[in-house]
Amino acid sequence: MTKHPAPDLRDELVTASRILFMKDILDGFGHVSARDPEFPDTFLISRNIAPGLVTHADFMRLDFNGIDVEDSGHRPFLERFIHASIYRQRPDVNAIVHSHTPSVLPFSISKRKSLEPVMHMSGFLSGEVPVYEVRDHGHVGCDMLIRNSDMGDELARSLGDEAVILMRGHGMTVVAPDVRLAVFRAVYTEVNARVQAMALTMGEYTALTSEEALAADETNSAQNQRTWSLWETQVQNEVTR
Amino acid sequence: MTKHPAPDLRDELVTASRILFMKDILDGFGHVSARDPEFPDTFLISRNIAPGLVTHADFMRLDFNGIDVEDSGHRPFLERFIHASIYRQRPDVNAIVHSHTPSVLPFSISKRKSLEPVMHMSGFLSGEVPVYEVRDHGHVGCDMLIRNSDMGDELARSLGDEAVILMRGHGMTVVAPDVRLAVFRAVYTEVNARVQAMALTMGEYTALTSEEALAADETNSAQNQRTWSLWETQVQNEVTR
Amino acid sequence: MTKHPAPDLRDELVTASRILFMKDILDGFGHVSARDPEFPDTFLISRNIAPGLVTHADFMRLDFNGIDVEDSGHRPFLERFIHASIYRQRPDVNAIVHSHTPSVLPFSISKRKSLEPVMHMSGFLSGEVPVYEVRDHGHVGCDMLIRNSDMGDELARSLGDEAVILMRGHGMTVVAPDVRLAVFRAVYTEVNARVQAMALTMGEYTALTSEEALAADETNSAQNQRTWSLWETQVQNEVTR
Amino acid sequence: MTKHPAPDLRDELVTASRILFMKDILDGFGHVSARDPEFPDTFLISRNIAPGLVTHADFMRLDFNGIDVEDSGHRPFLERFIHASIYRQRPDVNAIVHSHTPSVLPFSISKRKSLEPVMHMSGFLSGEVPVYEVRDHGHVGCDMLIRNSDMGDELARSLGDEAVILMRGHGMTVVAPDVRLAVFRAVYTEVNARVQAMALTMGEYTALTSEEALAADETNSAQNQRTWSLWETQVQNEVTR
Repeated sequence: MTKHPAPDLRDELVTASRILFMKDILDGFGHVSARDPEFPDTFLISRNIAPGLVTHADFMRLDFNGIDVEDSGHRPFLERFIHASIYRQRPDVNAIVHSHTPSVLPFSISKRKSLEPVMHMSGFLSGEVPVYEVRDHGHVGCDMLIRNSDMGDELARSLGDEAVILMRGHGMTVVAPDVRLAVFRAVYTEVNARVQAMALTMGEYTALTSEEALAADETNSAQNQRTWSLWETQVQNEVTR
Repeated sequence: MTKHPAPDLRDELVTASRILFMKDILDGFGHVSARDPEFPDTFLISRNIAPGLVTHADFMRLDFNGIDVEDSGHRPFLERFIHASIYRQRPDVNAIVHSHTPSVLPFSISKRKSLEPVMHMSGFLSGEVPVYEVRDHGHVGCDMLIRNSDMGDELARSLGDEAVILMRGHGMTVVAPDVRLAVFRAVYTEVNARVQAMALTMGEYTALTSEEALAADETNSAQNQRTWSLWETQVQNEVTR
Repeated sequence: MTKHPAPDLRDELVTASRILFMKDILDGFGHVSARDPEFPDTFLISRNIAPGLVTHADFMRLDFNGIDVEDSGHRPFLERFIHASIYRQRPDVNAIVHSHTPSVLPFSISKRKSLEPVMHMSGFLSGEVPVYEVRDHGHVGCDMLIRNSDMGDELARSLGDEAVILMRGHGMTVVAPDVRLAVFRAVYTEVNARVQAMALTMGEYTALTSEEALAADETNSAQNQRTWSLWETQVQNEVTR
Repeated sequence: MTKHPAPDLRDELVTASRILFMKDILDGFGHVSARDPEFPDTFLISRNIAPGLVTHADFMRLDFNGIDVEDSGHRPFLERFIHASIYRQRPDVNAIVHSHTPSVLPFSISKRKSLEPVMHMSGFLSGEVPVYEVRDHGHVGCDMLIRNSDMGDELARSLGDEAVILMRGHGMTVVAPDVRLAVFRAVYTEVNARVQAMALTMGEYTALTSEEALAADETNSAQNQRTWSLWETQVQNEVTR
């Protein structure tokens, strides 16, 4: 027991997975992970399974090369390098969500418009959310997945200091200081995308300034428990998915 | 007991909260309040909690400075000043909904189109629904929230005699003579926004004239019990959220 | 008992009401009626209640002047004249749905595009679905409702021989030879509106020719039992709404 | 018993039908079939019933002329020739989904844009998904259905070697080497259509290259069990539809 991380973090990741599935951020694909506070050069992530089905027993602990440090025997996600590289390059990040959310995807492929914060709930978004274009990194004709540490490192560098990065024709990756805030940011990235897309069909609009975004993010981060309590109650009240 | 407002108003606010959550007007954020008929210079509003989780015990009574007159010990909403200022300036208003409804938000940021009534159910909307732009009131780089009485008063003045005001990049505030009508108006503001946005993608359209809007509003206000009965039944039949 | 219509028609209208509510064609408003086969100059329609709550006991029998011929004591719908006038002018019509369906409403207000059949399931739609503009009939500044026989007759004449008519800023009215087909047509009018609106955002498209529409309608009318069985099972399995 | 196909394939088709109904790919109409591995010149398909209601006992075995080889007495689908002709012309195909999915339909009628793969989950789509235009095959003023072997053969030839074909004003047909992959492809064709349509409202976008699509398809086909497990669990947990 002494070597294992606190069990409640795995439970929190189960709840996070089910919330993200309930909110249509994740479908049968995508994953959420957390840095292990006891062994901070490793992180917890489920085996290769749909997030809506994940349980406490499905988690494994990986190092920053994507190696299963406890030899769990579980089959890992192909894209574990998204998580590994970001945890290595961003000591401030303790939780990561990767998803293929349909309403966010158009902003990953558009040549005309970047995703940007248009409402105060999504002040964590930067003025122009960066997009990782796999072709720009020499991967021509690839399957779009982040399959190894080199690609993970490219993605992490493209992310820089931001909270969210889009991946062209693939999805998004959201990072945060803790699991609850990562879930919050993933949910409101999706809401922002819908609001911005609808506003775009009407013509020009006013986005948040970077000052407004920063101030709103600071306020909302402190209100995060309100949504977590709600969403946790909702998924617990659903006996099954 | 003699000093407390009739308990049924708190129950009505619980039902209202759950209806607005069921209809996606409120999510984890937003709030609904009612003027206390016994102490009309105070109003009832829940403590800082998600509307989908609110119960009878969560309500507190605030005065128009946002002070908890019964020292309940509850933590209030940061934005209680929205309610306080409007109740002070609008004696005809006895119920208020504040929300971040995604399909309404685009109209709060659009430079091209105002929300306006395009269907008879939303005749309570004015020809061009006003938008509170926080920057126009000297709040530069703020977190967008209505955090004090000064900002609440600005919002109330911008609302004027209307039933609905949008807040740029933030949400909407809906007022009515009673809780049931406030819920009705919040719901149909959202429907109107979707209908208008869809019509906008097709080009020019015909809105209601102010005469049509006024006449339709008068009729619909008298039909309000029909929707309340339905929605109340729906939320009561859901054992849990 | 001898004077009463067959009870199964009232049950069928209850099922129809609940299907249309489940499919978001009706919300708290709107109504479905059926001509009484025993007294074909009268029709069955519920009292003024939300369709999602209607039961067998809520129905009343009205004549073509909108008079309650059995003095049920029920409060009728203001817009019963929609039904009364159409049954009088269209002996082929035995069931009518009136609704405020949000995805259909944009076509009632657009100056640019008419609703038209773009998929074979909605072959019952005419090439350009007619729109009743209340202003064109001298009703200026009215509440948009069909409140009397004169307005009902105007609507019925505007409908002509069609299956569907839109009402500007108000909703739609759908007619059919029987209740099940009226439900079918109301559902697929809504689907057609969504498909056509989405196609419009892409530019020009191909609609059905009137010959295709006619042929498809004839085929689909004979397949109507398939959807009715499904939808009836769905609403019966929901213990409550 | 010796002449019957393995019972588990019929069970798999029941699960597939219910998944496709849950995911709104099928509504009251549409069908999913599988080639009988024991008698590969026949296929299993349900009788004329809504997919959401189908059970093990509803299946029949048809040959490539659409004839019920076991004289089940069931009433077959009018459009069984879609399946019969494709199984005859495509020995690699062992499962077929035909549907009227609303978000895919706009791409079947648009004169401006073809459906194409814009996200890695839908790499099975060809660069420009073919559209079967019934008029181009001399069927003028018809009811749009694939009613006989000649029309089935036209559709199969238009499909060529692709995984998906659209049918103008009618729907889509999706083929795959097995039932689970056919379900997967139908689901992600729908997601791709929504993503592409939303991107189109923003202007130009980047689609997958054919090399990317091919590589992504190969990867995703091997991940197919993950979604099937999820969706199977979801439909099994719903006691009734």
